[in-house]
Amino acid sequence: MWIDDINEEIVPLDRRAMSSAQRRQAILTKPAGSLGRLEELSVKLAGIYREATPKVGRKVIVVAAADHGVTEEGVSAYPSEVTGQMVLNFLKGGAAINVLARHVEAEVVVVDAGVKAKLPPSENLRSLRIGPGTKNMAKGPAMTRAQALRCLEEGMCLAEELVGDGASLLATGDMGIGNTTSASAVTSAITGALSEAVTGRGTGISEEVWRRKAEVLSRALRVNGPDPEDAIDVLSKVGGFEIGMLAGVILGGAKCGRPVVLDGFISGASALIACGIAPRAREYLIASHRSVEPGHRRQLAHLRLKPLLDMRMRLGEGTGAALAMPIIEGAAKCLSEMSTFSSAGVSERSEQRQD
Amino acid sequence: MWIDDINEEIVPLDRRAMSSAQRRQAILTKPAGSLGRLEELSVKLAGIYREATPKVGRKVIVVAAADHGVTEEGVSAYPSEVTGQMVLNFLKGGAAINVLARHVEAEVVVVDAGVKAKLPPSENLRSLRIGPGTKNMAKGPAMTRAQALRCLEEGMCLAEELVGDGASLLATGDMGIGNTTSASAVTSAITGALSEAVTGRGTGISEEVWRRKAEVLSRALRVNGPDPEDAIDVLSKVGGFEIGMLAGVILGGAKCGRPVVLDGFISGASALIACGIAPRAREYLIASHRSVEPGHRRQLAHLRLKPLLDMRMRLGEGTGAALAMPIIEGAAKCLSEMSTFSSAGVSERSEQRQD
Repeated sequence: MWIDDINEEIVPLDRRAMSSAQRRQAILTKPAGSLGRLEELSVKLAGIYREATPKVGRKVIVVAAADHGVTEEGVSAYPSEVTGQMVLNFLKGGAAINVLARHVEAEVVVVDAGVKAKLPPSENLRSLRIGPGTKNMAKGPAMTRAQALRCLEEGMCLAEELVGDGASLLATGDMGIGNTTSASAVTSAITGALSEAVTGRGTGISEEVWRRKAEVLSRALRVNGPDPEDAIDVLSKVGGFEIGMLAGVILGGAKCGRPVVLDGFISGASALIACGIAPRAREYLIASHRSVEPGHRRQLAHLRLKPLLDMRMRLGEGTGAALAMPIIEGAAKCLSEMSTFSSAGVSERSEQRQD
Repeated sequence: MWIDDINEEIVPLDRRAMSSAQRRQAILTKPAGSLGRLEELSVKLAGIYREATPKVGRKVIVVAAADHGVTEEGVSAYPSEVTGQMVLNFLKGGAAINVLARHVEAEVVVVDAGVKAKLPPSENLRSLRIGPGTKNMAKGPAMTRAQALRCLEEGMCLAEELVGDGASLLATGDMGIGNTTSASAVTSAITGALSEAVTGRGTGISEEVWRRKAEVLSRALRVNGPDPEDAIDVLSKVGGFEIGMLAGVILGGAKCGRPVVLDGFISGASALIACGIAPRAREYLIASHRSVEPGHRRQLAHLRLKPLLDMRMRLGEGTGAALAMPIIEGAAKCLSEMSTFSSAGVSERSEQRQD
């Protein structure tokens, strides 16, 4: 089965290209290391693109939307109809992700991964529905194992198709009322963090709703007993259709040798699942920002990723990923386009002052 | 004298525009507050531009270069010829700031504020030289009070001219071998921080050079006794021509009602001087990033500014400011371009779940 081979199909980063990039950083007209994380990022990009001076081309943000049966437990501040309404808003270009994607010149691919409402057909909407929202994970598995595998496969195929069409940088974004509850459950199951430690305020819930959410989360984990060693089991028991599909996008992006920019907490849950299935995918990930969701720290620690931005954002949709894109491109451009000390006729360090 | 009136000429931010922006943020299609610092930034921009939905237009980065007499004490890892060589690199477009400015579509205005080397005339170089570098502040004042005032006035006039020509967002950048020593002295003098606490590694100096730098700094402060209540005195005793000129750019930007994006540690020293002269300028400042220079924290705390980025950068030139520009523009665009709940037909919070 494809999923058994996926880790082998992802090649480790190109260490030779990374060494070349590192050496080039040392001769560019700036004190060595003075561009800090931009330099590290440029070296990582060299390894992913397998080129000493990589160029970031077309940028595509996959925004996957789905509904969550667990909303019937009253864990969100918004009614679940909002998922479908926001998909329509994405299609009309009025959501934050549309504004930021236009700003950074990225394309948005909106995916119906399993929205409850029937959405009118639109050429800008990819219908990859697994079902009309997941089942209530507080009472049993959110989806079947077959559905979990379908999410992953659809996401992977989508990423492959996008890369085939020229996508150079992929990013993940989400929409789904109730999905922070699901992402919290995935995070707790995979990292072993206590459910209270990964339960956040989501879209902005009250203290009372927060307590209910933490309780629902514990119940979902108890009722389903997801196996932390089996990421597909975790996805099927407490995941969501959009979470699984974005995990597939990560696997597909890594397989095709493209960086995948993670948005916040929901994308982090997808990354935990993707890396649980194929640990080699991890090196292809770039964490865009630190979400205010408390579980996001646990995810990033588990994935050993350091976010580029910390803007106290918690919207999802891929907004953090979009905002980080110019930084990623800037890192690559500094590496490729800056003059060297010798080409610019600039003196290097005066070593006699160094000893 | 113009400088006595400058604080009065800077108008406080437009609170009405800020309230409108705040109210608009609450009805845009996202949970209130979920764009975090982007929302705060958009409200600040509304106040500066005096418009409820501000637009960021032409972006200009002023990169001021000058030499520092204190380099004769051996406080830098690079010889002072590098200042002039880097100016030529700026003019040829090969430096990091050129790459990042092109990337974010900002213009770079290179200013000779007092480079030691004779630079060949170039239509892309503004010659506003105050002198061939400052004097050695370890032995006496870096410049005269008249020179300090000239720096400030030239910078202010430049900002006014740039805004007159359509600049909508200004940023400060610097080049000057030895200027972290000067910026440290300014920071210590104005914030009262101990000189060791504000002495950093600059372009990357050894332990021995660091100790010498801290000692030179203490000596400069002792010899000159700058008056912390008189920012012009601080500038003349331990400042630099580029530091003074960028302080003038800040004053001019604020006077013209434009945001001024600060780069790192050198720009921070300029901001301390500008705000010492005209406290009202502070509200017009946006701190782009947190530099690894230890004194930068003290500056930002004194200025009550929180940087947008923390990328472990320490290059100067305006590179951090350039990198923050797309975030600033993104903040303004989200405020202006996003749909509202009612225009997009998206349901608002289900209040019954909130109590």
